[in-house]
Amino acid sequence: MTADFENFRPFLRRLAGIAAAETLSRFRTDIAVIDKGVLGGGSFDPVTAADREAERMLMQAIEEAFPDHAILGEEHGEKKGTAPWRWVIDPVDGTRAFVCGVPVWTTLIGLEENGTPRGGVISQPFTDEHWICPPGETTTYERGGVVVPARVSGEDNLANARIMVTDSRPGEYLDDAEAEVILDLTRSCRLCRQGLDAYGFGLLASGHFDLVVESALNWYDIAAVLPVIEGAGGVACTWTGTPITQEFERGRVILAASQALADAAVALLQDVPAP
Amino acid sequence: MTADFENFRPFLRRLAGIAAAETLSRFRTDIAVIDKGVLGGGSFDPVTAADREAERMLMQAIEEAFPDHAILGEEHGEKKGTAPWRWVIDPVDGTRAFVCGVPVWTTLIGLEENGTPRGGVISQPFTDEHWICPPGETTTYERGGVVVPARVSGEDNLANARIMVTDSRPGEYLDDAEAEVILDLTRSCRLCRQGLDAYGFGLLASGHFDLVVESALNWYDIAAVLPVIEGAGGVACTWTGTPITQEFERGRVILAASQALADAAVALLQDVPAP
Repeated sequence: MTADFENFRPFLRRLAGIAAAETLSRFRTDIAVIDKGVLGGGSFDPVTAADREAERMLMQAIEEAFPDHAILGEEHGEKKGTAPWRWVIDPVDGTRAFVCGVPVWTTLIGLEENGTPRGGVISQPFTDEHWICPPGETTTYERGGVVVPARVSGEDNLANARIMVTDSRPGEYLDDAEAEVILDLTRSCRLCRQGLDAYGFGLLASGHFDLVVESALNWYDIAAVLPVIEGAGGVACTWTGTPITQEFERGRVILAASQALADAAVALLQDVPAP
Repeated sequence: MTADFENFRPFLRRLAGIAAAETLSRFRTDIAVIDKGVLGGGSFDPVTAADREAERMLMQAIEEAFPDHAILGEEHGEKKGTAPWRWVIDPVDGTRAFVCGVPVWTTLIGLEENGTPRGGVISQPFTDEHWICPPGETTTYERGGVVVPARVSGEDNLANARIMVTDSRPGEYLDDAEAEVILDLTRSCRLCRQGLDAYGFGLLASGHFDLVVESALNWYDIAAVLPVIEGAGGVACTWTGTPITQEFERGRVILAASQALADAAVALLQDVPAP
């Protein structure tokens, strides 16, 4: 850690506020929605003005504070840097939720050191909830100006687990084989909720969910999340139990409140064939 | 309308506040969760202290204001009355969401006249959102003390529709035949989000969703919702296109932003066999 990172938690919180000004002012308004078509096959992947403007403002603020850092944005591409640090930002993760007025989209801001995620922010400005983990520290949850530690539940029994998957239907995020196994997995758990995107990852960090399973994630969907989960005592791995790196296979992710729960999920998911 | 119902919108808002004091103070805390087993087959239907206490407080407040009204609660059963009015209350609709810390559970407060829903409240206190329709009036949306009219989108084309279903998986709310048709329906729409319970009904009333399809609802899940949707210009019917009454078949509900959209959903859903 360099001297740069003094008072770093407030700086991360300030970044979340900068993004919020751009996202919240456009939430639940009539905005132009563009079909980027990233997912192909007629899928709908809207990108809003909120996303673009917030990313621009975040890049400016980061560049001012850390001119030598690299920045990777979903919208504006990569800005090269000379430091070992790179920011990975996604101002509106969960654009489908955003378009439907559902306040479970989040702003994701991650910080890598030599390609490894070290710090992260998950921020939902409509509900005023912010999960923040600076490099080398632990995760806090902030709401209404009150900051408390965030800690996973520690649940280690699949039959007791509350699981979140963003979408169990085949065809959008999941192929048929993935959807079938995930349906089985959700039925092995105590409770399942869907449709929460990275907001569900934050709830895992605070102990409200015990297990999250996702597929087809991109790096900017998960880079900011890993430090938040690990800084709250949670476990993250791929469906085969390997560490999540930038080359992680097919965006398949397990986030869990304990190693035992992650292992139980790996046992069920590891043999699902690649699409 | 009798003189009783003067200043009735503020009274409904006050009821939402009374429930909020009991629900919010228990949200995201470690509370005893009871498996009522209402859904059978090992399904999980937790009922919390929040539900019981909020219902008790709501019944007290209603009884004080309207001693001759009947009250139907999910937890404490029915209080008979002599007036043609009956309240139908469910303080925590979406108990699964409540147990997972997801702020999409709602407090539902409905008012029937001779068995027909006439007024309703959908309230989410964590996000401070309240959809209110007094008998004979139109629906408003309130947040942060600011009250604005709530109005459905009016969307009439299925291919453009944003659809909400609480759970598309077979086995919990849906049987296999229902799940198959609902999967097809969601694929015919522009966007699908899941897991929102009656909070999604509120978003429909405010024009953020265009279509909601549910099954296995109980009367107290929908009685308060119908006036809110209709008071926002929306349309409600069963999967066969008939009005939703207390005897509605299998709890199968369509809520839509236009008659054309409701008709399109009926065309796809009307022949799904009864389980």
